[in-house]
Amino acid sequence: MIKDYAVGIDIGGTNTKFGIVDRHGIILDQGRMRTDAHENAEDFIEELYSHLTLMIATHGGNEKFKGIGIGAPNGNYYTGTIEYAPNLKWKGIIPVADLVEKKFGLPTKLTNDANAAAVGEMMYGAAKGMKHFITITLGTGVGSGIVIDGKIVIGHDGFAGELGHVVIRPGGRLHKGTGIRGSLESYASATGVRETAIEFLTQDPDAPSLLRNHSIDDLTSETVFKCAEQGDAIANHIFEFTGQILGEALANFVMFSSPEAIVLFGGLTKAGDLILKPTVQAMEANLIQIFKNKVKVIFSDLQEADAAILGASALVWE
Amino acid sequence: MIKDYAVGIDIGGTNTKFGIVDRHGIILDQGRMRTDAHENAEDFIEELYSHLTLMIATHGGNEKFKGIGIGAPNGNYYTGTIEYAPNLKWKGIIPVADLVEKKFGLPTKLTNDANAAAVGEMMYGAAKGMKHFITITLGTGVGSGIVIDGKIVIGHDGFAGELGHVVIRPGGRLHKGTGIRGSLESYASATGVRETAIEFLTQDPDAPSLLRNHSIDDLTSETVFKCAEQGDAIANHIFEFTGQILGEALANFVMFSSPEAIVLFGGLTKAGDLILKPTVQAMEANLIQIFKNKVKVIFSDLQEADAAILGASALVWE
Repeated sequence: MIKDYAVGIDIGGTNTKFGIVDRHGIILDQGRMRTDAHENAEDFIEELYSHLTLMIATHGGNEKFKGIGIGAPNGNYYTGTIEYAPNLKWKGIIPVADLVEKKFGLPTKLTNDANAAAVGEMMYGAAKGMKHFITITLGTGVGSGIVIDGKIVIGHDGFAGELGHVVIRPGGRLHKGTGIRGSLESYASATGVRETAIEFLTQDPDAPSLLRNHSIDDLTSETVFKCAEQGDAIANHIFEFTGQILGEALANFVMFSSPEAIVLFGGLTKAGDLILKPTVQAMEANLIQIFKNKVKVIFSDLQEADAAILGASALVWE
Repeated sequence: MIKDYAVGIDIGGTNTKFGIVDRHGIILDQGRMRTDAHENAEDFIEELYSHLTLMIATHGGNEKFKGIGIGAPNGNYYTGTIEYAPNLKWKGIIPVADLVEKKFGLPTKLTNDANAAAVGEMMYGAAKGMKHFITITLGTGVGSGIVIDGKIVIGHDGFAGELGHVVIRPGGRLHKGTGIRGSLESYASATGVRETAIEFLTQDPDAPSLLRNHSIDDLTSETVFKCAEQGDAIANHIFEFTGQILGEALANFVMFSSPEAIVLFGGLTKAGDLILKPTVQAMEANLIQIFKNKVKVIFSDLQEADAAILGASALVWE
């Protein structure tokens, strides 16, 4: 019997999304549940099974399914384990792929959530048909997935592609999660943009800005975007500063793997040209001649809500 | 007939080295000639042929040879061309692999010289049996070769792995060749060490140092090494500073491809622990938890004079 469908599961710190996906990347059915409602992975998988077993039955049962793909923080492709994920309640090394495979009776693959997103871009998104590209997710944090020769780079230990943690401003802003100073994530994430906003407003307390109409709690990357759109100088400067740092980092990535394109994804991309223009400019300024004007920097065209499920399901077809 | 031998050719800006290599990495015969004595690649290949044709004949003629491997600056593996190499007299895009293949009547592969060195390490050197590693050559400049899943990373355009040009000190020291500020090569090369020495001696003109017994022209990385060995404080500080920057860069590379090892090669490695210790310390300090104490940083055990020929020849067996 032809295996027409895959299950895609995206495990996040708060929510888990799951869905039934066909070979064309159409999500036929989907749902979500709380990840953090379960103190251990076994209970979590019980609830996940209760939701998905109905969906699977509706679409012809296990025999129509090629397998299950899971994207998860600190997911290890080689072992199918989630290892010491700081955002999950489950501690240590959890053999999630094995547990799911046994419970569902379907072959199960697991990888880092950012790597899953890159597989999704390659199969269904902006990187369709590309063999060399990098995806950068600019969300609460900065995630990445690197594709070389049509394959996700997972490295010696299964954890490659942690580009959010490269140091781009030595001695710079402290990252509270890692204790390292000056990493890309400290600047080019929603959290980073918020910190930059607070810094800029504090450094120059007399400069007028629409941002001052917002409370500190309300000073999100969305607020900065809205103020920048209205022509606010400080808000615009925040995106220039963020794009400068992101662009320098992208130049370094290009000199590593020379990709055809870099696909940007996540909340910060809503700022459009406000973030894209300074990013591309800084990238080009820091590339050596042989790489100049070669590398496309593009936004993902996948819906953010769908991308995680699609990416995870794509592991099954890979 | 069994093809027992390969020709390895390393084209450098000044000299070209060539040799006959067997499958075990033994160099049976070798020679060298001036690269810069020839205004165009055709004349260069004529002279190269005149030397090598005798060697090939001595070892049983073309039928005993599997092919020719060439390492060259700005060598493109996909096309076999050397493209706009700043250190060569031959301008533009030169189809060197094609020209050599026609002249010699043997299958010819060409790649970047630093990538060839990495292939040599994988087949005959410190990275034997490894599938994920990075070689960094700390010579006059900084070269690199990246191996993922047992394959050299050449990227979308054939030019990947230019890690000497990543920016590690934004706004830092100007690289005269590229016009970019703060690249790894500006600091962690023989040239960079010399510049650091001049900077340190100038910044602190009253501090005593054995380095002051040398003229500016004589202030090479070797001189700095010798003075550091004798306990000179400034000379030691120069290596700590260089290792700090190199280590930060290595941490960033680890977060990209998560290699099993980083193999250091070239003149600066003669400084041994003086450069290795601060490098490893800075690398570890900048790695996130999942990568700490996992990645070996080791020196190449290939003879510098042989490595280039071995690496180039290894392309033939790859």
